[in-house]
Amino acid sequence: MKTFTLEQITQITGGMLTKAKDVSITKIAPPLLADENTLALALGEDEIANLSNTKAQAALVPLGVNIDGFTTIEVERPRLAMMKLITMFYEEPMVNKGIHPTATVAQSAKIGENVSIGPNAVVSENAVIGSNTRILANCYIGNGAVVGTNCFFHPNVNIGDRVQVGNDVILHHGVSLGADGFSFVTENPNNIEQARKDGEIRENDVSQVIFKIPSIGSVVIGNNVEIGANTCIDRGTIENTIVGDNTKIDDLVMIGHNCRIGKGCMIVSQVGIAGSCVIGDRVVIAGQAGLADHISIGDDTIIAAQAGVSKSFPAKSIVVGSPAMPRKEFIKQLKIMKDAGDLISKFKKYEPLLKTFEESVNDSDVAGVVK
Amino acid sequence: MKTFTLEQITQITGGMLTKAKDVSITKIAPPLLADENTLALALGEDEIANLSNTKAQAALVPLGVNIDGFTTIEVERPRLAMMKLITMFYEEPMVNKGIHPTATVAQSAKIGENVSIGPNAVVSENAVIGSNTRILANCYIGNGAVVGTNCFFHPNVNIGDRVQVGNDVILHHGVSLGADGFSFVTENPNNIEQARKDGEIRENDVSQVIFKIPSIGSVVIGNNVEIGANTCIDRGTIENTIVGDNTKIDDLVMIGHNCRIGKGCMIVSQVGIAGSCVIGDRVVIAGQAGLADHISIGDDTIIAAQAGVSKSFPAKSIVVGSPAMPRKEFIKQLKIMKDAGDLISKFKKYEPLLKTFEESVNDSDVAGVVK
Amino acid sequence: MKTFTLEQITQITGGMLTKAKDVSITKIAPPLLADENTLALALGEDEIANLSNTKAQAALVPLGVNIDGFTTIEVERPRLAMMKLITMFYEEPMVNKGIHPTATVAQSAKIGENVSIGPNAVVSENAVIGSNTRILANCYIGNGAVVGTNCFFHPNVNIGDRVQVGNDVILHHGVSLGADGFSFVTENPNNIEQARKDGEIRENDVSQVIFKIPSIGSVVIGNNVEIGANTCIDRGTIENTIVGDNTKIDDLVMIGHNCRIGKGCMIVSQVGIAGSCVIGDRVVIAGQAGLADHISIGDDTIIAAQAGVSKSFPAKSIVVGSPAMPRKEFIKQLKIMKDAGDLISKFKKYEPLLKTFEESVNDSDVAGVVK
Repeated sequence: MKTFTLEQITQITGGMLTKAKDVSITKIAPPLLADENTLALALGEDEIANLSNTKAQAALVPLGVNIDGFTTIEVERPRLAMMKLITMFYEEPMVNKGIHPTATVAQSAKIGENVSIGPNAVVSENAVIGSNTRILANCYIGNGAVVGTNCFFHPNVNIGDRVQVGNDVILHHGVSLGADGFSFVTENPNNIEQARKDGEIRENDVSQVIFKIPSIGSVVIGNNVEIGANTCIDRGTIENTIVGDNTKIDDLVMIGHNCRIGKGCMIVSQVGIAGSCVIGDRVVIAGQAGLADHISIGDDTIIAAQAGVSKSFPAKSIVVGSPAMPRKEFIKQLKIMKDAGDLISKFKKYEPLLKTFEESVNDSDVAGVVK
Repeated sequence: MKTFTLEQITQITGGMLTKAKDVSITKIAPPLLADENTLALALGEDEIANLSNTKAQAALVPLGVNIDGFTTIEVERPRLAMMKLITMFYEEPMVNKGIHPTATVAQSAKIGENVSIGPNAVVSENAVIGSNTRILANCYIGNGAVVGTNCFFHPNVNIGDRVQVGNDVILHHGVSLGADGFSFVTENPNNIEQARKDGEIRENDVSQVIFKIPSIGSVVIGNNVEIGANTCIDRGTIENTIVGDNTKIDDLVMIGHNCRIGKGCMIVSQVGIAGSCVIGDRVVIAGQAGLADHISIGDDTIIAAQAGVSKSFPAKSIVVGSPAMPRKEFIKQLKIMKDAGDLISKFKKYEPLLKTFEESVNDSDVAGVVK
Repeated sequence: MKTFTLEQITQITGGMLTKAKDVSITKIAPPLLADENTLALALGEDEIANLSNTKAQAALVPLGVNIDGFTTIEVERPRLAMMKLITMFYEEPMVNKGIHPTATVAQSAKIGENVSIGPNAVVSENAVIGSNTRILANCYIGNGAVVGTNCFFHPNVNIGDRVQVGNDVILHHGVSLGADGFSFVTENPNNIEQARKDGEIRENDVSQVIFKIPSIGSVVIGNNVEIGANTCIDRGTIENTIVGDNTKIDDLVMIGHNCRIGKGCMIVSQVGIAGSCVIGDRVVIAGQAGLADHISIGDDTIIAAQAGVSKSFPAKSIVVGSPAMPRKEFIKQLKIMKDAGDLISKFKKYEPLLKTFEESVNDSDVAGVVK
C-alpha cells in the first residue's frame, strides 16, 4: 500500500498546507467516501460542503477555501493537483510477461524487448512491435503493421494491415484502426450527385452497379495519442488518414478516410468526421458534433457539442449549431427566436390599426391629408 | 417442437378466445409469414388488415377487434401478451458446458457452479464469476472483476479490471465496461477553459503538455441490467461509474466517467452522456440524445431523441430540442417559427405604409395634426 | 510490383492521353507524394495546382484540364477512373489458408471449399460457411448461422445465432449482426406510454417490472453488402431484420430490430435507424441522421446529415433538419430566420410611431379624421 505524509502531498501538488497534522494518507476519495487515512478531494462547491460529513482528517481544496479547524492543502489549479495525486496512487494494470502461449505471432513479425502479448492476441506477418509495448488479450495486429514503443493496447483492439502507430499510444477496448474507407462510385451520376447539381432527383438507372473504391492508403497515428473504446479510424484511399501527436480521442468516435487531424486535439465521444477533412492543432470537437467531408478547421478552434459543421472555419473560431455558425451569430439567432415571440404578439396588437390605416389610405389619401 | 392449444395460449396471455377451434400452435409470426399451425400476431392496423391473406387459422388481436369467421384471442395489452407468447416459444441459445479448452482462466479466479466459459474467453487474476453465468467466446474479464450469478455475456464483451457486474445481467457483442475516462489536464488553462471564461480564445502556449488523469475508479452495474452491442461505459476518476438495477441500455451508447444512472432507466441507441451526470430512476433517454457533463436529471423524466441537454431538469420533465427545453416551450418555438413566416409577409405588405407615415411625421407632426 | 504503361492506363480508364511519354507507372498518389514512376491523381482544384510541384511525370486529370508541357490522361468521370486505377494496383490482404489450428470449428458446421478461418475464430454448431469465404482472426459465427460464398470478414466480427449473410459480403472490425432488439414491456403503461397519451407523466408505479421481449427473429443480409466497423444490426422480434442486396453501410451505424432496408442504399457513419422502419431502394442516409421507429422512406430518397426523421417520406424526397422536413421547406425556414432579424430591427424602428398613432386613435378617432 502506498503511503504519503501531508507534507509530501503538499510538495508534490505545489499546494499550501494549513493546520498541519500528522496523518498517513493511503487513499484519495470524495469526502463522503473517505476514511481516516483518506485525503478527501473537495474541488467543487458540493464536495466542499460535504467536508462537514467526512471521516477524512484532511482535504485538497481550491486556493482560498478555508474551513474552520480542518486541515487542508490549498491548490491553485485543482485538476492539475488531482492529476498529480491520482498518478501517485495509480497502480499499473497487471499484464502477463512475454508472449502468452495462446497468442499467435507470425515468425516474420519483429517483436521488441520486454513486449507483452496477451492471450489469443494475433500479430500477423511482418508486423513490428516496439519495445515495452503491451498488447492485451484478443488484440489483432495486421500484416505489416508497425506499433511503436511503450504502447498499451487494451483487449480486443483491431489494427489493420500496414497501419502505423507511434510511441506511448493508448488504445481502449475494440478500437478499429484501418477499416476500409466508405468510398464507392457508380458508372453514371447517382442520386446524390444529381441532387447536388439539380437540387432534385431525376429518373434513376435502378440497375446500375455500385463499385467499391478500395483503400490502398493506411492509417498513421502519432506519439502520445489516446483513443477511446470502439472508436473507428478508417484508412485513406490513396493517402493515409493521419492523427497528430498528443491528440486525445474519446469513445465511439468516427474518423473517415483521408482525414488529417492535427496535434494536441481533443475529440469527444460520438463525434463524426467525414472523409478528407483537415483539422488543425489543438482543435476541440465536443460530443456528437459532425463534420461534412472536405472541410478545413483552423488551429485552436472549438466546435460545440452536436454542431453540424458543413463548411470550413478559420483558426480560433468558436463554432455552434446545426448548421454550424460562429458562436456570436448563434447567440444572435437565439435572441431573434426569443424576440420573435414578443414581436408576433406586438404585431398582432397593431395589426388592426394598420389595417384601418391601410383602408383609409385606399379611401382618401392619408399622406396627402396629414400633409 | 413446442406445441400449445389455443386454450393454453388464451390462459397464458389472459385474453379472450372467440370462435374456438382445435388447432395445434407451434409457431408465432406476422399474418403474411404464418402457416396453418402459426398463431398470427396482428397487433397493429396493417397486420390486422393482412389477416385477410393469412394461412393462419387463429390470431392474437387487440381487444375489440372482430374479424368475421376468424378465430381470435383478444388481449387488452397486446405487447404484454406478445412478450408472454414469445417467451413461451423462445429457446435458450446453445452454449458449451464448463470451461472451453481454449479459454484462459487464471488460477486465482473464482468460478461459481455451473458456469460456462466459451472458446478463447479470458478470465484474469482474482476475477470472480457467479454461478450459472455464461460467458461466450472471446470475452475478456479483467483482473479482480466481479461478475454476479446468472449473467449472459454474448461474444466479445470486454470487462475492465475491478469492474463489478450484478446478477442476471445481459451484455451484447462488443460491450466495453471500464475503459478509462476521457479526462486530461494542462499546466495552464487550455482553449476550452479560456473560452468559458472570456468567450474567446487568446494566444496559446502551443507546446504545453496534455496530462492524462488516470481513472482509479471503476464501473458498477446493478442487477437485471441489459446493455446493447458496442456500448461503452467508462470507469470513474476516483469514484465509480454506476448503473442502477433494471436499467436497459441499447447499442452504441456512451456513458462517461463518474456518471450515476438510476434504476429502471431506458437509454436508447447512440445516446451520449458526458462525465459526472446524475440520472434519476425510470428516466427515458431517446436515441442520439446528448447530455453535457455534470447535469442532473430528475426521476421519471423523458428526454426526446436528438435532444442536446445542456442543463439540469427536474423530475417528470419532458425535454426536447437542441439546446433542450421543456416540451411546451419547444412547441411554442415551433409555432413562433411558423407564425414568423406569416408575419414577415404581412409586415412587408404594411411596410410602405409605415414608411409613408414616418415621412409625414418628419414633415409635419402627424400626432399633432390628428389631435 | 505491378507496372503499367500510360497507354495501358489510358485504355483501362477510358481516358484521353495528351503529350504521350514513355513512363513505367508503378504507383498512384497525390501530386505531392508522387515519385517519377507515380501517376499523380489530380482530380480536384488543389491537387491540380499541386502538379506544379510534383515529381510525377504524368497525371490523371478531369476532362479539359490542360497543363503546359505536362503529360496527362484526361477522364470524364474522375472518381470512376480512380476506382479502376486503384483496383489495378490493389493487392488482396494476406490470409491464412484453411482452418487455423487455434480456430474452434464445431463438427456439425458445414465449411465450403477454399474457406479460410483465422486464428481464434469460432464457428458454432450447425453453422454453414460458403466456399471461398475468408473469416479472419477472433470472429464469432453463432449456432446455425449461414454465411454465403466469397465473403470477407475482418477480425472480430460477431454473427449471432441463425443470422444469414449473403454472398460477396464484406464485414469490418467489430461488426455485430444479431444482438437482441431493444424491446421491453411493463405490466401497466410506463412513462413513455403515458406521455404519448396524455402529454405528461403521472404518478408512477415505481416497482413495476420491466420484462424483456425476447428476439426470436434473426438478421438477413443480402449479397454484395458492405458493413463498416463496429456497426450493429439487431435481430427482429418475430420477423427478421433485413438488409437488401448492394447496400453499403458505414462505421458505427445502428439498425434496430425488424427494420427492412432496401437494395443499393448508402447509410453513412453514425446513422441510427430505430425499430421496424422500412427503407426503400437506393436511399441515401447521411452521417448522424436518426430515424424514429415505424417510419417508411420511399425509394431514391436522400436524408441529410444529422436529420431527425420523425415521420415517413415518399420516394425521391430530399429531407433535411431536426425535426426533418423537405429541403425546400427547410430553406424557407432558414430564410425566415434570416428575415426575422431584419424584421425585428425594422419593427423596433416603427414601434414608437405605431404607439403614437395608437394613442391618437384612442384620443380622437384617427380613422374618422382622415376620412
